[in-house]
Amino acid sequence: MGPHPAVADVRRAVREALADVPHGALVLVACSGGADSLALAAATGFVAPRMKLRAGLVTVDHQLQEGSGERAAEVVALGAKLGLEPAEAIAVTVGTNGGPEAAAREARYAALAEAADRLAAEAVLLGHTRDDQAETVLLGLARGSGTRSLSGMAAVTGRYRRPFLGIPRKTTRAACEALGLTPWDDPHNEDPRFTRVRVRRRVLPVLEEELGPGVAEALARTAALAREDADALDAWADTAYGNCALSDIGGSVRLEVAELEKLPDAVRRRVVRRAAIAAGAPSGALSATHVLAVDRLITHWRGQKAVDLPGGLSAVRRYGTLIFAISPIP
Amino acid sequence: MGPHPAVADVRRAVREALADVPHGALVLVACSGGADSLALAAATGFVAPRMKLRAGLVTVDHQLQEGSGERAAEVVALGAKLGLEPAEAIAVTVGTNGGPEAAAREARYAALAEAADRLAAEAVLLGHTRDDQAETVLLGLARGSGTRSLSGMAAVTGRYRRPFLGIPRKTTRAACEALGLTPWDDPHNEDPRFTRVRVRRRVLPVLEEELGPGVAEALARTAALAREDADALDAWADTAYGNCALSDIGGSVRLEVAELEKLPDAVRRRVVRRAAIAAGAPSGALSATHVLAVDRLITHWRGQKAVDLPGGLSAVRRYGTLIFAISPIP
Repeated sequence: MGPHPAVADVRRAVREALADVPHGALVLVACSGGADSLALAAATGFVAPRMKLRAGLVTVDHQLQEGSGERAAEVVALGAKLGLEPAEAIAVTVGTNGGPEAAAREARYAALAEAADRLAAEAVLLGHTRDDQAETVLLGLARGSGTRSLSGMAAVTGRYRRPFLGIPRKTTRAACEALGLTPWDDPHNEDPRFTRVRVRRRVLPVLEEELGPGVAEALARTAALAREDADALDAWADTAYGNCALSDIGGSVRLEVAELEKLPDAVRRRVVRRAAIAAGAPSGALSATHVLAVDRLITHWRGQKAVDLPGGLSAVRRYGTLIFAISPIP
Repeated sequence: MGPHPAVADVRRAVREALADVPHGALVLVACSGGADSLALAAATGFVAPRMKLRAGLVTVDHQLQEGSGERAAEVVALGAKLGLEPAEAIAVTVGTNGGPEAAAREARYAALAEAADRLAAEAVLLGHTRDDQAETVLLGLARGSGTRSLSGMAAVTGRYRRPFLGIPRKTTRAACEALGLTPWDDPHNEDPRFTRVRVRRRVLPVLEEELGPGVAEALARTAALAREDADALDAWADTAYGNCALSDIGGSVRLEVAELEKLPDAVRRRVVRRAAIAAGAPSGALSATHVLAVDRLITHWRGQKAVDLPGGLSAVRRYGTLIFAISPIP
């Protein structure tokens, strides 16, 4: 008799995600003890030795909740039972930068990176599911900042891999149940002060109710397509930037307007954005409104004044050249 | 004393949308009598003569509801009062193809096109607002078919123009009220059997409640950015198709695999899709799954068999050439 279908699904997903990892390498599972990463730990513990890989586990103790240390120790013990070696807990201190979610994420990734370096791990596996991906797309949509922000999480970024991006959350839960594993339900995952929790508990259920049960899948598919599109356009903008840039010296970038005019809107605006950042504008503060204002110096030229940009920069057009520099530009 | 701010907003939007229409030309307002198109008719009646344009009105009587003929006559009378000349009602018979919403839309656009031709109109103005755009993006998102389906409605398509895509629905309603115009509320706009109505009544309010009041605006911004991106990628795919196609004779298309391999995923898949359609696959039946299966003949080649496509076609790879033709390919 084969394994439970949910167990087969999570194992297949891990197998596919690890197909290119060289024999003998170490892969680390990042495990909170929740259903997603517990199913990931179990699947990796089963699959890795059969693929001639070593598998370990890291759990991050955020020290934000009563008893978090004991829970981390339980996850480590469970990891060892699932054949993951080494299995370790890393305690971190969460700051406050960017709000509680962002601060916890930053501390967690720093701990994972440190462990991966120290243990010379080839890959770090994260348990994000198709539902997490759908939530991420909706959060990006609410920002309204375009194709890249709709592209959700990547299946592979550097050493991080997300084998479950195509797996629904209910499958990881079913896999845990079939394997007799009891997941820990993080109370933060139910706290409606977090936007992501509200998206999960309120927004996605209404979308499914009104638009049909395939919404999470459609959102995950949107993410994959948006990521491909954003990658292709970024590559085009890279080449175009090279063709347009007359000079690109620290703090000052000059672009040739005649070259910019040949580009489609989507690419030209990416080049403008890139130039502003290359000249020193902080990317977080550079809005679509800034980019559009500079773009009008190219597409709607009627002798406008300099456009102010974040970081004390401005952009001006002079004799067919667009100049980004510290203002006032002499 | 200037006009009410909402009236100023809708007039400004119409003025901007008509900036490039040559003096003396006729623009037609498509008016249902609802708040959006009534505000559009009023704004156009005010703005057009000041821009040396002629403005007329067409209302389409779908003959689906009791008293629709009387209502159409009222809209025509109102149009004349607003200075729109000619103002006419066109009665249509709505079929059943593609469901009630699609059939009504088809009949309506056919009537508008006929009127525009007959009256030699330069432009036909449609009253879609930012909220309609947000709804369209959500409907596209639920399909999960990528950047083009997120791009909503175009501000300009052929002779159709949508001056209000940046204007919230509440502004058109406020403009009507300020001008003493009583809009007609189409009961179809409240019928929860229509997906769009459910998006409007249930989905958007929940999104605004949970993600903040800027959601409709963010969705409209997403549409504009997605449209630019889709246009740029389509242009790239056009060029790439020209470079890859060895022959493109009715019913059979041959692409050079070595050229396809140079393209980023997003462009290569668009070229594959285009080739399948050029060879005769019906575009509505050609899914992302079909395209991905053909794409694997390029990216994951290990001697696969032909991939079946809709329309009795298949795709095979032979000696570095991808062939799309009626199956079985000899």
